Amino acid sequence: MSTKPLDYENLNENVKKCQYAVRGELYLRASELQKEGKKIIFTNVGNPHALGQKPLTFPRQVIALCQAPFLLDDPNVGLLFPADAIAKAKHYLSLNSGGLGAYSDSRGIPGVRIEVADFIERRDGYPSDPEHIFLTDGASKGIMQILHTIIRVPTDGVLVPVPQYPLYSATISLYGGSLVPYYLEETADWGLDINDLRQSIGQARQNGTTVRAMVIINPGNPTGQCLTEQNLRQIIQFCYEENLVLLADEVYQQNIYQDKHPFMSARKVLFDMGQPISKELQLVSFHTVSKGYWGECGQRGGYFEMTNIPPKSVEEIYKVASISLSPNVPAQIFMGLLANPLKLGDISYEQFSRESKGILESLRRRAHIMTDGFNSCKNVVWAMYSFPQIQLPPRAIDAAKKVEKAADVFYCLKLLEATGISTVPGSGFGQKEGVFHLRTTILPAEEDMPSIMSSFKKFNDEFMDRYE
Amino acid sequence: MSTKPLDYENLNENVKKCQYAVRGELYLRASELQKEGKKIIFTNVGNPHALGQKPLTFPRQVIALCQAPFLLDDPNVGLLFPADAIAKAKHYLSLNSGGLGAYSDSRGIPGVRIEVADFIERRDGYPSDPEHIFLTDGASKGIMQILHTIIRVPTDGVLVPVPQYPLYSATISLYGGSLVPYYLEETADWGLDINDLRQSIGQARQNGTTVRAMVIINPGNPTGQCLTEQNLRQIIQFCYEENLVLLADEVYQQNIYQDKHPFMSARKVLFDMGQPISKELQLVSFHTVSKGYWGECGQRGGYFEMTNIPPKSVEEIYKVASISLSPNVPAQIFMGLLANPLKLGDISYEQFSRESKGILESLRRRAHIMTDGFNSCKNVVWAMYSFPQIQLPPRAIDAAKKVEKAADVFYCLKLLEATGISTVPGSGFGQKEGVFHLRTTILPAEEDMPSIMSSFKKFNDEFMDRYE
Ligand SMILES: Cc1ncc(COP(=O)(O)O)c(C=O)c1O
Ligand SMILES: Cc1ncc(COP(=O)(O)O)c(C=O)c1O
Repeated sequence: MSTKPLDYENLNENVKKCQYAVRGELYLRASELQKEGKKIIFTNVGNPHALGQKPLTFPRQVIALCQAPFLLDDPNVGLLFPADAIAKAKHYLSLNSGGLGAYSDSRGIPGVRIEVADFIERRDGYPSDPEHIFLTDGASKGIMQILHTIIRVPTDGVLVPVPQYPLYSATISLYGGSLVPYYLEETADWGLDINDLRQSIGQARQNGTTVRAMVIINPGNPTGQCLTEQNLRQIIQFCYEENLVLLADEVYQQNIYQDKHPFMSARKVLFDMGQPISKELQLVSFHTVSKGYWGECGQRGGYFEMTNIPPKSVEEIYKVASISLSPNVPAQIFMGLLANPLKLGDISYEQFSRESKGILESLRRRAHIMTDGFNSCKNVVWAMYSFPQIQLPPRAIDAAKKVEKAADVFYCLKLLEATGISTVPGSGFGQKEGVFHLRTTILPAEEDMPSIMSSFKKFNDEFMDRYE
Repeated sequence: MSTKPLDYENLNENVKKCQYAVRGELYLRASELQKEGKKIIFTNVGNPHALGQKPLTFPRQVIALCQAPFLLDDPNVGLLFPADAIAKAKHYLSLNSGGLGAYSDSRGIPGVRIEVADFIERRDGYPSDPEHIFLTDGASKGIMQILHTIIRVPTDGVLVPVPQYPLYSATISLYGGSLVPYYLEETADWGLDINDLRQSIGQARQNGTTVRAMVIINPGNPTGQCLTEQNLRQIIQFCYEENLVLLADEVYQQNIYQDKHPFMSARKVLFDMGQPISKELQLVSFHTVSKGYWGECGQRGGYFEMTNIPPKSVEEIYKVASISLSPNVPAQIFMGLLANPLKLGDISYEQFSRESKGILESLRRRAHIMTDGFNSCKNVVWAMYSFPQIQLPPRAIDAAKKVEKAADVFYCLKLLEATGISTVPGSGFGQKEGVFHLRTTILPAEEDMPSIMSSFKKFNDEFMDRYE
């Protein structure tokens, strides 16, 4: 009998080729164990609410009122909601005719895009044009759309950091392009060496790849590094010389726990560099409501901002966005609230600022616990993740080979079975040949951290004893 | 100077090729006129809340509580929310650890997928497997994902009805496949003639196209027809014989205003046909929270259900879904509420059923007003749209040519300028050579309908006088 169109052998090859480790073998095994009743600590994905982080009260009050606008006419509404939440809800409802139940413009609600533009201007010190800001269902969807726009043929290449967040490798496979890796330097706090970058692009070109874009993740995932201003200048100059679009994934811009390297957007550095480059370099920057002290992952809200992209191209990007009608409206409002937060003097300001500081400080403490816990691995934690190196003895590597697993997958599976800690093997993000890592988030509840770190240490000692 | 990667000439050709008329030239012009202060009646997209339809109260109460779970501990919560909404909110919050702020499983929350499976079983009389149901950000995203999975090379073809909802043509272009049109028969209530279908597929194959899938939209958009059981059997038999996946877009299943042809799902008809076909035919069915009496377009909720798709393929589809982490969680809960509605005896049942009946009956009345208004065009309105034929005189066609517009675009632009009614030209959906239509929704407020119909009639009379 002949095979059918949706049989495995007949699927789109790009669909089959792509890999997505964050929810790969480790995650599937963890889900199985959980079903069997084992307690699993999911540290495979940066999903803070799932590990107990509480949502910020004020934005949730606003969105609840927007979802239930009939409450605004209820004489008792003031018993459950503060006046500033009521006012904000009315503001957002006035921005989209039909409220949360109506498709918005496919780029997102114009009034919210203005709030985002103002946020960017306050952050960078340069005005931003709301017509070049598109709201998206999480940063992921925006990144996927832009990569799809860039990739035309299999030889079109995109420079991606290694280690990287696997959204990039998966999406480049899915749209049939070529990933061109550049390595971050573990021994230099995961910084970026511009000479390595030149080597990567040179080699790719020799192999017939048309390199068209470069991705930076700043602050980094999984590595957590925050690029210095000088590094950003070099990168921008490099993209300009090599005629690349720069894609700046800045979803962790709020996740800074140290003062040495404050976050600086690629856009600000670009504009600081002045003409001609500030008017020439094509840049797309991404942000989200999923990270920072918001952690509103499940809402799926984000935006991308286009700098120096010609109007005809913006139109094409608009057209493709319109095929799926509009990003979800509730998350657009979260984005508005993130961009246009409460101010000193607002009724709910004190509570909002206490909650957000509390979350950031707790993240900072957890980052330090992890840094200390993994200090044998020279690991410094900055954004939301820890990416310690694991020194696997040759006998462990052999044992992994015997069961046909990559050595880091083998280690992480054993860790999972022994302790319930669900991590992602470094190979999911890319690492240098012969070097092994695991990635964990710093998101487990603060009070659980010491016991997690000690059960990890106990496992690691036993593992090393066994295979040394 | 050389061009840059995101200059128009360097974009992915498939991105440039695709067309999306629902938000095309007419919509852009209407938006401009609106900015200039003209009152526009947007009937270009099925977006009921934007035209004044009120959301159902109960689901909005539940979702507001899920967004603001701290209210559940407030002693005053009972003043604003009924007890069954409180209970439902607790139910849904218990289904996703971390609530609405946490990424769910990439297929959607397991507990909600069980509710959807139960809904399908009640509707069709056959059990459904929640593991084969994936929740999506609106039906659009699911349809796009499945088409991407099917299309491998430019010669892979998908049978699509003409006229069709342009999501299909746009997506097939975007993923670089071939659209194979089959014509719906206007003179037979937009029914489908199986002989025409055979001709379409035969011709496509002669031209070297590998036809792999067939789309049906039932009830139809823009045509509003509801396929008969007999027609569905023929289609299923045809897909089986020709080895096609059947994609059943059933987003309008609640929008039935007549009793002659009740809605029947493709899945039910398939299972009624028994073995071997019921175990063989590959079918993917789509549904949404955007249509029916819910009309929750802005929430972006939907699902697809896979029948007879092998587990390895389901896994691949899961993997691709996981790249963008998860569909938005609030809309998943809307989908759960749609699938698992209130029952007689529940506190809010009476109100819910009054509201939903009210909306459906009003839609029915508006459908009749439109049917009567356009009766010169032999137009019958069933789902949410009207697709009347316009008899354009040769002089109008010439006038359109002079300004380099398609004749129906010309007509619709004039209609927009004269009356503020924003429609979509039939060419956006496809129509037979030399025949012209426009599409309008039946969604303007009921009290506005008579004046809209008469201003349309006045315009049409003047237009015909001018060009006759
Ligand atoms: C580097 C990076 N970019 C983008 C995303 C996507 O986030 P979202 O789609 O939730 O906005 C993530 C999520 O973990 C990430 O780590
Ligand atoms: C036939 C058809 N399918 C699918 C959709 C997509 O709906 P949504 O993505 O809002 O679920 C629409 C929207 O108008 C439609 O008309």
